[in-house]
Amino acid sequence: MYFEGSEKKFEVIARGAAFRTRPESYWATLVELAGAKILSKISNEACDAYLLSESSLFVWDDRLTMITCGRTTLARSAAYLLKDLPSLEFISFERKNESFPHQQETDFQKDVEILRQHTDGRAYRFGSPDEHHLFLYHMNKPFRPQGIDCTLEILMYNLQGQPSEIFHSGQTIERVRQLTRMDSIFPGFQIDDHLFHPCGYSLNAIKGSEYYTIHVTPEETGSYVSFETNVRLGNRIATALRAVVDVFQPRSFDVIYFHPEKELKSVDISPFIQLNYVRQSLNCGYEVGFSTYGQRVVEPQPAVALEFNP
Amino acid sequence: MYFEGSEKKFEVIARGAAFRTRPESYWATLVELAGAKILSKISNEACDAYLLSESSLFVWDDRLTMITCGRTTLARSAAYLLKDLPSLEFISFERKNESFPHQQETDFQKDVEILRQHTDGRAYRFGSPDEHHLFLYHMNKPFRPQGIDCTLEILMYNLQGQPSEIFHSGQTIERVRQLTRMDSIFPGFQIDDHLFHPCGYSLNAIKGSEYYTIHVTPEETGSYVSFETNVRLGNRIATALRAVVDVFQPRSFDVIYFHPEKELKSVDISPFIQLNYVRQSLNCGYEVGFSTYGQRVVEPQPAVALEFNP
Repeated sequence: MYFEGSEKKFEVIARGAAFRTRPESYWATLVELAGAKILSKISNEACDAYLLSESSLFVWDDRLTMITCGRTTLARSAAYLLKDLPSLEFISFERKNESFPHQQETDFQKDVEILRQHTDGRAYRFGSPDEHHLFLYHMNKPFRPQGIDCTLEILMYNLQGQPSEIFHSGQTIERVRQLTRMDSIFPGFQIDDHLFHPCGYSLNAIKGSEYYTIHVTPEETGSYVSFETNVRLGNRIATALRAVVDVFQPRSFDVIYFHPEKELKSVDISPFIQLNYVRQSLNCGYEVGFSTYGQRVVEPQPAVALEFNP
Repeated sequence: MYFEGSEKKFEVIARGAAFRTRPESYWATLVELAGAKILSKISNEACDAYLLSESSLFVWDDRLTMITCGRTTLARSAAYLLKDLPSLEFISFERKNESFPHQQETDFQKDVEILRQHTDGRAYRFGSPDEHHLFLYHMNKPFRPQGIDCTLEILMYNLQGQPSEIFHSGQTIERVRQLTRMDSIFPGFQIDDHLFHPCGYSLNAIKGSEYYTIHVTPEETGSYVSFETNVRLGNRIATALRAVVDVFQPRSFDVIYFHPEKELKSVDISPFIQLNYVRQSLNCGYEVGFSTYGQRVVEPQPAVALEFNP
């Protein structure tokens, strides 16, 4: 069994839902249905941010974003939430293609079958089946996002050099924070982070209604980092993207961008080369882009010897 | 269900095995164990080439190469063959990572468990789990290949333009041959080819002990072509590689190369960029290289709407 870093993500907007009035036990059950646990929580006036054993849950008054990795069954949590939400405005369910999909309990098609029991929707694939690609299901209902409601996700693969070594439990969390330098890229956020045993690192950060979140799975077989934020970056997107990629030094990365109006322009991040770019207008009010960046090989690598038990 | 073009491949060398004296019923059973059928056969003084419902089987006096795609269970055929072969010299079992691995009956680890019941061996992964990669199992026994025993495999993904349209059963087989121009790249071969309904094309070609074989799965979801040959190309490898890639016009391709001594040099095939290169010396006598080539994105593509049954 290998650890699957790639995530599923569920987002709901239901105006008037008053999500934050629901008791802790409700969120504990929701998270357990995915096969995860709540580790800790931070709050401010706008948002509750739960750090999970497998990724994160962010709860605002009228919306919710839940991200889970590993072998979690996020569609079950989604179904639990949807069964008593009469005034839905927007739903999206994302699933990045996995590196080890045969270890998953469901595939995207089964997830869609679960979600369709609660809401009519449309399903898309961003990218070719043989390449990095994103599955996306959204509720089939016109929606006008409020203001500049954007999300930037950066999925990074095969950390090179030092970053692959710093996310093990032998480190102190202060040292990890120093090395990730997030406070200099996104200053003024309240932080909740966790170093896992024997390895792995998760971080939730909130400031008003804004968040960013980081999940690192440094396992040698398929090291992976996801970064996600709803910070309104405007013209600073390319700068932020470059800064995050600089910290984690992946061999390749994907960018996912949701915005009510704008598409993400191609970004020049030398030495990376944009290998794929899929964009789609959704009738639920968002422009969505998915892009993969790789780089020219520098020198040959040896094959990896696999130690299967006989 | 999508059609999986990616192949599994099994190769055996057993001097004195006299494989070609085995009756047709033996090969029919061997092929059926993988879940495939023999469609046709051509022969010359050195080789019998069977065209299968899922790829190909080549049989020489002392060696055998079987390639199967789709949801086939090639490890079962391998186990059937191995149970009565006392004088084994060389075994390799390759499995390209699939685009739809959750549709497969086994994964590579299970295949290795089956093979280990008959022979001790080593398992490798060429490439990262998130990228195109190759699994390889080989018998753990020193072996000295005779002469220049090399194999070139070219795996091509996402055919662009005309090639994606010419492999449907509305075409004549003469037109397909004209368009693939193989006779000008590899002249003088005896050909056996088949156009599948509603789409797909397979070709076996032999000349003395040399072969090449082509399998096209032009399905819109994950179009794919594999080309493989044991022709001793020497300095003509780059030229042949360029010629084959020119015919099928993929968006990306992998190259796998087996040679007793030489590694495959990086090849400049503009506009393709070498994104990955893994090479490994195996103690069974071969240098093996696996390389992936992609290209810079030219313009954004729309997402693909998925029509799952509710």
